[in-house]
Amino acid sequence: MTDERSEGQGGDDGKAANGARREFLKSAITAGAVATSMGALGVPDRALAQPGVIPGTKNHYYVPATDKTVHWGYFSKSLKPAVEVSSGDFVTIEVLTHHANDDAERMVKGDAGAESVFYWDKQRKGVDRRGAGPMQPTLFGRGAGEGLGVHICTGPVHVKEAQPGDVLEVRIVDVRPRACANPAYQGKSFGSNAAAWWGFHYKELLTEPKQREVITIYELDCMGERNWAQAVYNFRWTPQTDPYGVVHKTIDYPGVPVDHKTVQENHGVLKNVRIPIRPHFGVLGLAPAEADLVDSIPPNYVGGNIDNWRIGKGATMYYPVAVPGALLSAGDSHASQGDSELCGTAIECSLTGTFQVIVRKKDTLAGSALAGLNYPLLETQDEWVLHGFSYANYLAELGAKAQSEIYEKSSVDLAMKDAFRKMRHFLMSTKGLSEDEAISLMSVAVDFGITQVVDGNWGVHAVIKKSLFNGG
Amino acid sequence: MTDERSEGQGGDDGKAANGARREFLKSAITAGAVATSMGALGVPDRALAQPGVIPGTKNHYYVPATDKTVHWGYFSKSLKPAVEVSSGDFVTIEVLTHHANDDAERMVKGDAGAESVFYWDKQRKGVDRRGAGPMQPTLFGRGAGEGLGVHICTGPVHVKEAQPGDVLEVRIVDVRPRACANPAYQGKSFGSNAAAWWGFHYKELLTEPKQREVITIYELDCMGERNWAQAVYNFRWTPQTDPYGVVHKTIDYPGVPVDHKTVQENHGVLKNVRIPIRPHFGVLGLAPAEADLVDSIPPNYVGGNIDNWRIGKGATMYYPVAVPGALLSAGDSHASQGDSELCGTAIECSLTGTFQVIVRKKDTLAGSALAGLNYPLLETQDEWVLHGFSYANYLAELGAKAQSEIYEKSSVDLAMKDAFRKMRHFLMSTKGLSEDEAISLMSVAVDFGITQVVDGNWGVHAVIKKSLFNGG
Repeated sequence: MTDERSEGQGGDDGKAANGARREFLKSAITAGAVATSMGALGVPDRALAQPGVIPGTKNHYYVPATDKTVHWGYFSKSLKPAVEVSSGDFVTIEVLTHHANDDAERMVKGDAGAESVFYWDKQRKGVDRRGAGPMQPTLFGRGAGEGLGVHICTGPVHVKEAQPGDVLEVRIVDVRPRACANPAYQGKSFGSNAAAWWGFHYKELLTEPKQREVITIYELDCMGERNWAQAVYNFRWTPQTDPYGVVHKTIDYPGVPVDHKTVQENHGVLKNVRIPIRPHFGVLGLAPAEADLVDSIPPNYVGGNIDNWRIGKGATMYYPVAVPGALLSAGDSHASQGDSELCGTAIECSLTGTFQVIVRKKDTLAGSALAGLNYPLLETQDEWVLHGFSYANYLAELGAKAQSEIYEKSSVDLAMKDAFRKMRHFLMSTKGLSEDEAISLMSVAVDFGITQVVDGNWGVHAVIKKSLFNGG
Repeated sequence: MTDERSEGQGGDDGKAANGARREFLKSAITAGAVATSMGALGVPDRALAQPGVIPGTKNHYYVPATDKTVHWGYFSKSLKPAVEVSSGDFVTIEVLTHHANDDAERMVKGDAGAESVFYWDKQRKGVDRRGAGPMQPTLFGRGAGEGLGVHICTGPVHVKEAQPGDVLEVRIVDVRPRACANPAYQGKSFGSNAAAWWGFHYKELLTEPKQREVITIYELDCMGERNWAQAVYNFRWTPQTDPYGVVHKTIDYPGVPVDHKTVQENHGVLKNVRIPIRPHFGVLGLAPAEADLVDSIPPNYVGGNIDNWRIGKGATMYYPVAVPGALLSAGDSHASQGDSELCGTAIECSLTGTFQVIVRKKDTLAGSALAGLNYPLLETQDEWVLHGFSYANYLAELGAKAQSEIYEKSSVDLAMKDAFRKMRHFLMSTKGLSEDEAISLMSVAVDFGITQVVDGNWGVHAVIKKSLFNGG
């Protein structure tokens, strides 16, 4: 495919008739002044309006989230990069939650970048394609892309040295909540949790009405002074008519604006319950090689929608590079999530991350933890975390219909088996253990947890402490 | 059934022709002097030889592990209690690992209690029945009980006030490794990890010979000065001929003495790898009501072989009482285990635990975390941990052939569903949440992990932090 982001999506000649957006475009002009107020690795106090190097720095790039810099609901090796960087460079990436329109007052209004992305009137959408489906929604009639993939991904970042067979190391240097731009909610950030039809619970509900979808809006402190989030209110999804006139009886297409006149807000829910925050990126990964337009929902060997809350500040991810330039994108930012992401989503909350990207060339990997890496690997200060999936590379394993069949075939049991195989390989290749040693060690010292059961390709992660190997 | 422990098992008139055993019996006489050297909740420096109240205390009982106090491989509501206690009393229970004969030099020799249990010559076994199978091994020819159940369980402890419908609270006050009694290994404790045919890895081996079983012997410091274990050596299982002449090609019957002249010990394995210890009881639970002779391997609603490493010192377990007196037993002690217990076992290591047992009467539970409890619930200082299984009560759900069919039907997916249902019930009943609140909270703040995939009835645990509810 070609870069569809330019097709039918609001350009400068669009009808984005709001003052905030004009302010946003103007801010590009003064970006140079902005950069002086940030630390070398931090997030600018005010965003750059266009991707590029941060003025005053040589190797720190910035990618704002705008209708020009996001690809919504899919990965593609054919996307034009939002920015090109070199190995070792830093890049700060704004990520918008695709659930922001569940409460536009709190998550879109006054935020020029979000408004450009979520813009939708009778004539046009800020970003038309949402998902990897057809642009003419002949399958389900939901909208362009058919919502076959839902995450607003910012990028991709092209890393010049990266070639297939290399490993891209992505150090997560900083993660910050995106402040609410609506003056009514100054100092706060907000997120949405959707207990949706794709959740593990959905066909198991006890109370009426069965098979309901419920949105819970959470708030957190955008300054990081509080380490917890709390619920604000919830509401049951009602059929929502989008600006094009399509009725969405369920949450079947991302970014549909919820008309709050049609829903019943229940305030005071989860009263006095404090959710520890775990800010992280549900989606972080590279473009795969196997297909050209890939649904953003199922995670795969180049990462993507892993939905592991450990992929936050201080962690490092390693991905096998599948296409030239690696093409790193970030999306699906979360304020918090539990292992399993049971109801289908986390606290979906816009975040901005700063990353350092380092290319590990193929011929330098022998004997390291990265030798033969064919899955997304997480390193924290104390642990290695390996990601197993029901299908390690579903695009290759399931053939031409992989992108639909993956939703029918997943199980935790399969993901457990994949995580076992990967951990065995890691211990044998990286630590030089025999198979017998590796298997015994896995049974007595490796913890297997359920990453998620809602993303088509289900996940089990295996955690091993680095300190095991410090005795020598 | 009647108490089969008296049938054909070595009594005082047995042929236990070793000096250590005679010493052991003599020690009962001087037990009064022993007790003075222990703290109120601690473990006596030397064990009592027979169950009973510890001299000098009023409410602290002691149950040594001997051929008279263990039931091997099964739970039964018909067992004669090893000791009767009252609600609020303390009981110290010795637990022997059923893998001690993998290296009798290190885990049996010189240990009078272990020698009485593992005693086996051409004429008799210290404990004949091992498992819930027939005493005449007409099914597989393995031995009495057929090894349909493997854990050496000490008990049961009858708690006078406990009646069906009540909850038994079991506080784990102390857990200590059992010191090696062989002077050659003074100051150490040992454990065995068997990568066995029932392991998750078994049909997936990469290297030859396929479908091998491997024993790894670990050592740890019995004084608790080191918080880690390390491997000593491993060996591949070879056909072992038991003293009755039965050849065990695989690890198919517990307590078969391994003849080390027939195996190749590989020393120096897992060199410099330190396994953090997590001393705990793989088996801790009550007699179920549904059947009279129940295989000790599949965990169920009254606990048993849950194999969660969090069931250690400082933790509290709550069990629904199914039969009068509750009948608490402990077994399958582990020095450490990872979530999943992948290869079939942990570091199987004899431990001694001190427990306080408290009966929570049925009519006092309303509105508490224990209301309607129908599964084993774990409380730690910071967390509640709920245990899901592939089948919540497989004895009731799977009918007459439940004890064999459970081994064919388990999956992590089913256990995940059960854990979800239990956590929803817990949040709704204990915390007063609506179903919508409970489901959102589970997705954003509850972690689901894989307890074990090797015990017939597979397990998923759900962990929720107590601090979530401290905000009010």
